Amino acid sequence: MAAKHLANCIFCKIIKGEIPSYKLIENEFVFSFLDIGPLSRGHALVIPKYHGEKLHDVPDEYLAAALPAAKKIAVALGAENYNILQNNGRIAHQEVDHVHFHVIPKPRASDDEGLVIGWPTQKVEKEELQKLHEDLLTKL
Amino acid sequence: MAAKHLANCIFCKIIKGEIPSYKLIENEFVFSFLDIGPLSRGHALVIPKYHGEKLHDVPDEYLAAALPAAKKIAVALGAENYNILQNNGRIAHQEVDHVHFHVIPKPRASDDEGLVIGWPTQKVEKEELQKLHEDLLTKL
Repeated sequence: MAAKHLANCIFCKIIKGEIPSYKLIENEFVFSFLDIGPLSRGHALVIPKYHGEKLHDVPDEYLAAALPAAKKIAVALGAENYNILQNNGRIAHQEVDHVHFHVIPKPRASDDEGLVIGWPTQKVEKEELQKLHEDLLTKL
Repeated sequence: MAAKHLANCIFCKIIKGEIPSYKLIENEFVFSFLDIGPLSRGHALVIPKYHGEKLHDVPDEYLAAALPAAKKIAVALGAENYNILQNNGRIAHQEVDHVHFHVIPKPRASDDEGLVIGWPTQKVEKEELQKLHEDLLTKL
C-alpha cells in the first residue's frame, strides 16, 4: 500500500523532513530517529511511513518492517537490556496519534531511568480463559 | 532461516505442543496464545518459532511476522486501548528467555489492570544527542 501522510501530524512532518530529527534509519516502510525526550540514553523511535493512529490501522507490510529496524538500533546501541513498547490509545499512554515503537535501553535496575513497568497480574478462572479462547477463535 | 527450538525452553515446548496452550494463531513464523497470568482480559503473547533469547537474536523474517499477528489479535479482541510490549533482559522485566510480544488490553485508566507504565523522562543536552547520533550513524 502506498505511503500515507497527514498534513498536521508531527511524525508525518518528521518523515517528510519538514521538522528536523536525529534520523537513524529510513527505508521504504519505516523511519526511525532519536527521541528528544528520552527515558534513557539511546531511546529511539521507529515509525511506519504510513499514517495510522493505532497498530490495527497500519498495513502489514509497514508493520513487518518495524521490528527489523528496532533490532538494528538495539545492535548499534549495544544494548543488553531494553524494552520495545508501542502504546495504543490515551489511557494506554499513547501521546502522538501516529503509531510509534519505542526502543528503550534499560541501563540499570532503577526506576530513575528507562521504562518503568508495573505488572498487576489478574486472577482468572480456567473456565473464563476457555470461554474467551473459544470466542476469539471465531474471530480470528 | 529454519525454525530453531531448545529442549528446555517452556515456550519452545508450547510451540511443539508438549505443553498445552490456548492457541490463537500459528503460521510458519509465529505462534500465539493467551497468557494464563494476564494483566487484563485478552492479554496474549506472540512468539517467534525460532528460539532467540532477545530481539537481536531473532532472524528478521520471524520478527516481521510478529506485529501482523499482534494486529489480528487486537482486532479480534476489539481492543481500543492496548499496549504492545517486548522485554529484553532481566532488569527490563523479561522473565522467559524466548522472545515474546505481549498484547495487553487496557480496558480503563486504572493501575489495577493492564500494563502500568512509568515514564522518567531524562534531561538531555542537544550536544549529547548530536554526539550519540553521530556515533550511532557509524554503526548502522
